[in-house]
Amino acid sequence: MHEDRLFPADPGERAIARRLYAEVAGLPIVSPHGHTDPAWFAYDEPFPNPAELLVVPDHYVLRMLYSQGVRLEELGVPRSDGGPVEADPRRIWRLVAEHWHAFRATPSRLWWEHSLADVFGVTDRLSPANADAVYDRIADCLTRPEFRPRALFERFGIEALATTEGALDPLDHHRAIRESGWTGRVVTTFRPDTVVDPDTPGFKRNVEALGELTGEDTLSWRGYLAALAARRRAFMAAGATATDHGHPTARTADLPPAEAEVLFGRVVDGLAGPDDAELFRGQMLTEMARMSLEDGLVMQLHSGVRRSHNAWIQGVFGANRGDDIPTRSEFVHNLKPLLDRFGNDPRLTLILFTLDETTYSRELAPLAGHYPALRIGPPWWFHDSPEGMWRYRQRVTETAGFYNTVGFNDDTRAFPSIPARHDVARRIDCAFLARLVAEHRIDEDEAREVAVDLAYRLAKRAYRL
Amino acid sequence: MHEDRLFPADPGERAIARRLYAEVAGLPIVSPHGHTDPAWFAYDEPFPNPAELLVVPDHYVLRMLYSQGVRLEELGVPRSDGGPVEADPRRIWRLVAEHWHAFRATPSRLWWEHSLADVFGVTDRLSPANADAVYDRIADCLTRPEFRPRALFERFGIEALATTEGALDPLDHHRAIRESGWTGRVVTTFRPDTVVDPDTPGFKRNVEALGELTGEDTLSWRGYLAALAARRRAFMAAGATATDHGHPTARTADLPPAEAEVLFGRVVDGLAGPDDAELFRGQMLTEMARMSLEDGLVMQLHSGVRRSHNAWIQGVFGANRGDDIPTRSEFVHNLKPLLDRFGNDPRLTLILFTLDETTYSRELAPLAGHYPALRIGPPWWFHDSPEGMWRYRQRVTETAGFYNTVGFNDDTRAFPSIPARHDVARRIDCAFLARLVAEHRIDEDEAREVAVDLAYRLAKRAYRL
Amino acid sequence: MHEDRLFPADPGERAIARRLYAEVAGLPIVSPHGHTDPAWFAYDEPFPNPAELLVVPDHYVLRMLYSQGVRLEELGVPRSDGGPVEADPRRIWRLVAEHWHAFRATPSRLWWEHSLADVFGVTDRLSPANADAVYDRIADCLTRPEFRPRALFERFGIEALATTEGALDPLDHHRAIRESGWTGRVVTTFRPDTVVDPDTPGFKRNVEALGELTGEDTLSWRGYLAALAARRRAFMAAGATATDHGHPTARTADLPPAEAEVLFGRVVDGLAGPDDAELFRGQMLTEMARMSLEDGLVMQLHSGVRRSHNAWIQGVFGANRGDDIPTRSEFVHNLKPLLDRFGNDPRLTLILFTLDETTYSRELAPLAGHYPALRIGPPWWFHDSPEGMWRYRQRVTETAGFYNTVGFNDDTRAFPSIPARHDVARRIDCAFLARLVAEHRIDEDEAREVAVDLAYRLAKRAYRL
Repeated sequence: MHEDRLFPADPGERAIARRLYAEVAGLPIVSPHGHTDPAWFAYDEPFPNPAELLVVPDHYVLRMLYSQGVRLEELGVPRSDGGPVEADPRRIWRLVAEHWHAFRATPSRLWWEHSLADVFGVTDRLSPANADAVYDRIADCLTRPEFRPRALFERFGIEALATTEGALDPLDHHRAIRESGWTGRVVTTFRPDTVVDPDTPGFKRNVEALGELTGEDTLSWRGYLAALAARRRAFMAAGATATDHGHPTARTADLPPAEAEVLFGRVVDGLAGPDDAELFRGQMLTEMARMSLEDGLVMQLHSGVRRSHNAWIQGVFGANRGDDIPTRSEFVHNLKPLLDRFGNDPRLTLILFTLDETTYSRELAPLAGHYPALRIGPPWWFHDSPEGMWRYRQRVTETAGFYNTVGFNDDTRAFPSIPARHDVARRIDCAFLARLVAEHRIDEDEAREVAVDLAYRLAKRAYRL
Repeated sequence: MHEDRLFPADPGERAIARRLYAEVAGLPIVSPHGHTDPAWFAYDEPFPNPAELLVVPDHYVLRMLYSQGVRLEELGVPRSDGGPVEADPRRIWRLVAEHWHAFRATPSRLWWEHSLADVFGVTDRLSPANADAVYDRIADCLTRPEFRPRALFERFGIEALATTEGALDPLDHHRAIRESGWTGRVVTTFRPDTVVDPDTPGFKRNVEALGELTGEDTLSWRGYLAALAARRRAFMAAGATATDHGHPTARTADLPPAEAEVLFGRVVDGLAGPDDAELFRGQMLTEMARMSLEDGLVMQLHSGVRRSHNAWIQGVFGANRGDDIPTRSEFVHNLKPLLDRFGNDPRLTLILFTLDETTYSRELAPLAGHYPALRIGPPWWFHDSPEGMWRYRQRVTETAGFYNTVGFNDDTRAFPSIPARHDVARRIDCAFLARLVAEHRIDEDEAREVAVDLAYRLAKRAYRL
Repeated sequence: MHEDRLFPADPGERAIARRLYAEVAGLPIVSPHGHTDPAWFAYDEPFPNPAELLVVPDHYVLRMLYSQGVRLEELGVPRSDGGPVEADPRRIWRLVAEHWHAFRATPSRLWWEHSLADVFGVTDRLSPANADAVYDRIADCLTRPEFRPRALFERFGIEALATTEGALDPLDHHRAIRESGWTGRVVTTFRPDTVVDPDTPGFKRNVEALGELTGEDTLSWRGYLAALAARRRAFMAAGATATDHGHPTARTADLPPAEAEVLFGRVVDGLAGPDDAELFRGQMLTEMARMSLEDGLVMQLHSGVRRSHNAWIQGVFGANRGDDIPTRSEFVHNLKPLLDRFGNDPRLTLILFTLDETTYSRELAPLAGHYPALRIGPPWWFHDSPEGMWRYRQRVTETAGFYNTVGFNDDTRAFPSIPARHDVARRIDCAFLARLVAEHRIDEDEAREVAVDLAYRLAKRAYRL
């Protein structure tokens, strides 16, 4: 990995970028939103093998290989019917190496190379020729204590890391972490999608389970809301400082209580059509905002994805296999009900994410550049990449500034890639700031302060960590 | 302010940009569209104080501070109910200084620093530490004759400046300017929104007032059209060369006369639903185009904003408080009725503005690169910024060229910032042209000619000034 | 033409771009999609004169001149009613020269200058002063054997060139080419729009003609499908390796056979409303995909244009006069029926084109970065330009990589501009790769391989040429 990677080619700009990066390269990692498995930190067991660590759970890698004609069975992705799939991790690894050219200029390539180099000491470019040697080296590392989850967590300099659990999760792993005496800060995040989205398979069973967990009558509107508030408190006891909401759209609603109650009745009775379901999700975002004002949890809204677009993949392999596709998004009308109710309250923080980059300059920056309750989350998913980050800063900053954004999220389940992902963000932010300095748009002392804010302080502050 | 600000960092490109900028830096300012107050030039009274000059009327500044948790009352923004707000301009000024970091890398920062340096001689970066000293210096300046409106107008090198008045405006200030013997060219612009948009509060009263002003029976379709034509003539007598239309969308219509008359009847009787209102606005754009072919006024269409998105702000403080939010826009279908009627006539000039940048390359450049009646206005509002201007040139030029654009508009009510805004546009255009020259896409002698066209000649020609 | 044109200004990046370009500058041209006239190659007659070769058929040139107030009659564009238009090619040529400034920074300018220099040896910038001399030089060239179509084809280094013919085309010119003994590879492409789009004027007559051509009963659903399959085979016999579909939207459908048959009945009886017509076009895309899996033809989908937007132009001059305007596009929902049926089959190749750049990163790259059957075509039409190509690579690559794209298409009827168009694409791709190398995002040996893939190998492979 070249030490100047991702910095501008112009020597003057590059020198500034280097100086800024020197200020942030070693800062602790604050990871306020992600999908690592808390069991790793609770029980600190070795990771199984290179393929199960780096290939099988990484939907970025799966999707690219699948697009190039590799079958998911060959990659060891388990079939829902238990049918046979590749069981030899080395053969899976070789398949990645054979298709390594397909990852050229993708962020997956950057993350992998950084992880392989910094975590496992592999500095050669992956190829069919060295695939076995690289595999052996990583496999060997994984047997050693310094490659167990907690050791890596500490080596990565992680100050705080948030996982994401569903509202019905017993939070046992988080309890185990706290009771273990280990001092790493791993907190949970409250994700209530399966109990607020009527389109979730088994929605009513979920609502009933929510009642069992909390002792509330969740088939009544009042009991349902009380149960959600109780689960939020339980998550806060497991360290949560935030909620996360994965909705198809950013639609919000603010119905009169009696109407909301009637809607809930239809929804829980399974009588809700698509419009009702959408309205109910929207109403629940506003209810969550109301609860956030009461308990202080920061809200995150990740909207605008068509999940499991590929019917065949969904049927054979299930969700999260790389076939989620973004859709056009709209925030101006959709958020208005919630904003009319709570948008002027600076005690609320609602962080918006989008996969529709057209909304950056047209909707999100104008909204977050006005409403005290709104912040814009970092470039998400397909846009968590060098070009994606540039577009984000270029489209967001002039209208919303830096201080209506919230630093970086790695949003990953690929634990070894966390330092790589933060490093890419830090480098690109320094490159972006270097251009502003080189073009005399801000002064270098200001850029230094902003660089530290973007790399560290803004995430900590926005997520109340 | 660094003399090379906003120029590319690459030394070769920067040298070209400097040479081009040297050709345009001193050109007179043509400001064909804006919102300064003609009373300033009519009566030439001193500006009251730094906060009332630079903070309270600037919705860019208000919105950013509000987003960061500053209340509008603290900024001295008058409440509609006359309730108490901050009255000490110095305290307002200090609040801006305390939040100055929030403006990093925004155009407001560029405009402010340029104005403070060039107009008031303040070259230190604003901060809480120097806020009082800067305030005192500007306040002192404002007491002196060379900081009165006419003196600044002349010092700024303004060749022509257009204000914008509603159709019912008596145009007294413009009359006073002409009768004063002062030679500065300040003209009005005809903005008929309140008498053509049925959704305007008090629409029928406005239509009746239009009748009183013109002696026409404006409750009849024929009288209403005649009254509008008469007001256009009155505006032309006050120097107007253009009309301006602020519509929610770019919808146009071309109804048979009898249907238009019936629609007008419904609208003026208050019987119009949302569809009727939208159709009527669309019809009136086509009527205005027809009148433009008769009287020669250039048309401007500013569409695609959700005004007063924040219900609470609207209720307490009213309009133009920084809570207008852009929406998705559409021109291809919306403009077709008007274009089918008048789009092929090169005697008509209809200048299109957008806040939805996706329309630059997809709709506006293809439309303006074909129809002789269409031109594309400069990047507007949230996009009147360095990055916004780059995106505009990069997306518009290859399909529409430079000669279907119309130079720069400052579109501002912040009078001291006018030279700063034109300077930013000139610098970015020179930077853009420098890149084209450095990449051998055009020759430098051509770039020089284009630079002067963009800075000066195109606006003069397009607006017939 | 400067030898470094379109390369980045930074000396380090430029040096890399030069080295990469040296690898691809001389590669043969593979032109897998375009609109040249096969009669040129069949009969090898001289081109008539400079205006008829370079101006009259070029809708890019017509549209820009028309937007600047030049009438199409003055440009010699034939009127549908046979009314008088300019007949002197020299006067047409002079009009272009007088408006040459309007083309600054447009791709038309780049293509023209390259063609004039490399094909006709004209190295001075076109101007009113030299218009006649340039005209004379080109006119003189056109009389000479080395400027006949086949000679130019060979001089251009064209390895394969695809034209596009409608499903009813007798393919006589292609037959003549093959029978002539000339060894240039000119193949056809199957474009069935006029027999699958019910909105085509004369649709039923076209379907009947399809029956006459194939001996099938095309008024029955089964016979209609058999006739289409037969025409596909006939096109394959004329070298076709691909089909091309120009639809208003990307809508697809996958109806049960009985419903499809009923819909066909309504459509062919002229009883189809707009929804039926759209549904039928969508169904036919899926039928075409099914046939592609049987016969191996690659599918291309060019959607999202409002053809003949200008009613007056359409009435007086007909189609393809520069008044086609892009519209907002949607692929995620629209393609799902086809993809659910065939998207997982790597034997199918469906190449998607768009004029709505917002779909690059939001829809096309995620879709093509997952489905094995999908590929993204190069930037099309208004985006076949330096800036358009940069935007394409910047938005597509990080999610879809290079290997879900298919190289370059010139898509032109302007034969002399083919080398220029490929050269622009090769230069921009090398510039883009040079930046990746300079920023240490890929290694230079990889960039070299990618450059050759983008310039040559990907098109050949994707189109099975």
